Amino acid sequence: MIVDRQERLLAAVADRGLDAMLVTDLVNVRYMTGYVGSNGAAVLAPDRRLLFTDSRYLVKARAETRGVEVRPAGRDLLGAAAAELADLGGRVGIEADHVTLSHHARLVEALPDVELVPVSGMVEDLRVRKEPEEVELMRRAAAIADDALEALVAEPIVGRSEAEVAWTLESALRAAGAEGASFPIIVAGAANGAVPHHASGREPVPPGTLVVVDLGAVVEGYASDSSRTFATGPLPEPLERAYAVCLEAQAAALAAVRPGIGTTELDAVARDMITEAGFGDAFGHGLGHGVGLEIHERPWLRREGDGTLEAGMMVTIEPGIYLEGLGGVRIEDLVLVTEDGGAPLGRFPKTLMTLPARRGGGG
Amino acid sequence: MIVDRQERLLAAVADRGLDAMLVTDLVNVRYMTGYVGSNGAAVLAPDRRLLFTDSRYLVKARAETRGVEVRPAGRDLLGAAAAELADLGGRVGIEADHVTLSHHARLVEALPDVELVPVSGMVEDLRVRKEPEEVELMRRAAAIADDALEALVAEPIVGRSEAEVAWTLESALRAAGAEGASFPIIVAGAANGAVPHHASGREPVPPGTLVVVDLGAVVEGYASDSSRTFATGPLPEPLERAYAVCLEAQAAALAAVRPGIGTTELDAVARDMITEAGFGDAFGHGLGHGVGLEIHERPWLRREGDGTLEAGMMVTIEPGIYLEGLGGVRIEDLVLVTEDGGAPLGRFPKTLMTLPARRGGGG
Repeated sequence: MIVDRQERLLAAVADRGLDAMLVTDLVNVRYMTGYVGSNGAAVLAPDRRLLFTDSRYLVKARAETRGVEVRPAGRDLLGAAAAELADLGGRVGIEADHVTLSHHARLVEALPDVELVPVSGMVEDLRVRKEPEEVELMRRAAAIADDALEALVAEPIVGRSEAEVAWTLESALRAAGAEGASFPIIVAGAANGAVPHHASGREPVPPGTLVVVDLGAVVEGYASDSSRTFATGPLPEPLERAYAVCLEAQAAALAAVRPGIGTTELDAVARDMITEAGFGDAFGHGLGHGVGLEIHERPWLRREGDGTLEAGMMVTIEPGIYLEGLGGVRIEDLVLVTEDGGAPLGRFPKTLMTLPARRGGGG
Repeated sequence: MIVDRQERLLAAVADRGLDAMLVTDLVNVRYMTGYVGSNGAAVLAPDRRLLFTDSRYLVKARAETRGVEVRPAGRDLLGAAAAELADLGGRVGIEADHVTLSHHARLVEALPDVELVPVSGMVEDLRVRKEPEEVELMRRAAAIADDALEALVAEPIVGRSEAEVAWTLESALRAAGAEGASFPIIVAGAANGAVPHHASGREPVPPGTLVVVDLGAVVEGYASDSSRTFATGPLPEPLERAYAVCLEAQAAALAAVRPGIGTTELDAVARDMITEAGFGDAFGHGLGHGVGLEIHERPWLRREGDGTLEAGMMVTIEPGIYLEGLGGVRIEDLVLVTEDGGAPLGRFPKTLMTLPARRGGGG
């Protein structure tokens, strides 16, 4: 699997007339070599595949990597990689989206005879189509998140603080074997729900409103991402209508997922319905994004852009309607783009569910 | 506090002959403005202090920032900041250690009449000396970590998996009000303890060896970092000796902390003692590092370097001895450099403590 990725990257390297690629972004290093750690860089060339790391990680790196020789680099990772690249010579691709000006200056100084070519997205372009093993890990992550939500709604949550509810969810993810949450879990009640990236706080979840719950698990580095919105009692009319519109728009967008559809076209499927219902200004973000080793990665499903979906991509479909001062709704699934459509990973229901108030008054 | 930081940065900006500074690293943006989020950039000039972020964060950013005007930037943060910088003109400092080649290319294109000057560490140089409010947050974080360790050792841990013990600690941090752990908590028994950055796994903590526990809490963005090593029964002689040597070296280094001491000189205090005891090769990392908004930040206490400690700095003192295949010991405190010495934040004892085996056999 990992060695295949190296072959594909090296094919792209040759296509661009490069002699080697220096991979320094840690997520890309992990994808290309299997190395998991905080200090690593890979040199990938047709006849040389190396992973540099420091003494803390050597033993672990030798066990977890595939297809690369692991070399000790001390603290000076770039220096060690540069020494190897000087020996290789020629044209070397570097990651324009990750290499900083300081690191670039060091490489330029260390490699007077090498042509450094900044390139964008060479590894990310591979990551975007998930392999079956990656899909399986994300399926496990999504199932763990679903289970956590199911356990959550079996107990009263009205009156508990957002942060406490978020922590209950995170504990459930961990107890089920996840490495952790894929981002800080969002529990946003009433007006807080109108803030898409609300940080769950000490405020209690109030009755008679909506509460947005956005969570994901990590399994072997791979993330899931899903959201549900619940009622905590009878709703004000605008929130009830917003939920119905959002649900319909999400279903329509899910049904429209297929290879070949443009990312803006897909975004428009949900956006047009929300706009026609009069909530256009209340849907301020894009329809979704890719997910994998990172919680936000390519492709981007937005109003602007020029990509198209391909089989193997894994994207979120997450329209939202945010009514300032009142509340918000977001319904989100992680979906695998298949040969002829889309296959949502989650199975948690989406019909509006009303959560009971705290029973009795005890815990 | 935050406005003072802006004044100090602007003084440094003027000293370097710059007209403005573009701050894009999110930790630095937080430090300079108070903004906490995933998409923000600051333009700081004598007569203009701006924070750019997108619609998701506007309300929150306006509430949490100080001394800056918050401007909406949509997805194109750099574009919005660049428009402002074009208007300012002159020489603009950019963060060489954080700006990527892609972002640099975009800025160069957008700002043909501005001189972009890559500078290193201008904000980091301010962050290194902690203000009393920052020290107080770190003190709270350290106390929470100490409490979690105390609760941990009150229960048997031998026979439980490393990951489960780590999770018990993380849960305790959260229950005590921390935002979370400042890094993945390390619980490393027996030979795993010889791997300084061991990822806590499913292996049970065995009896008759050492177990390294390295943890930290986050309070309002500020991290703590401390390690203790425990015995889980009578020890093999090399481990017993390693513990005694490490403890003595740590005490000596702690006693040597004071303003004006060189970072390499301080590292040598512990390293020389460990080397004289015959364990020199088994202490592969530096003596410590700065801590603050980041778990690893300036200054670095290592064999190489040319810095000196100053009052207000917050550093770890963490010598370690790692005996491959056998076990490891690391003893670490977070220490505030005071006017005349060093004041450790933690209070957890360091005399070798032997943890009992699991009682009975139940949970």
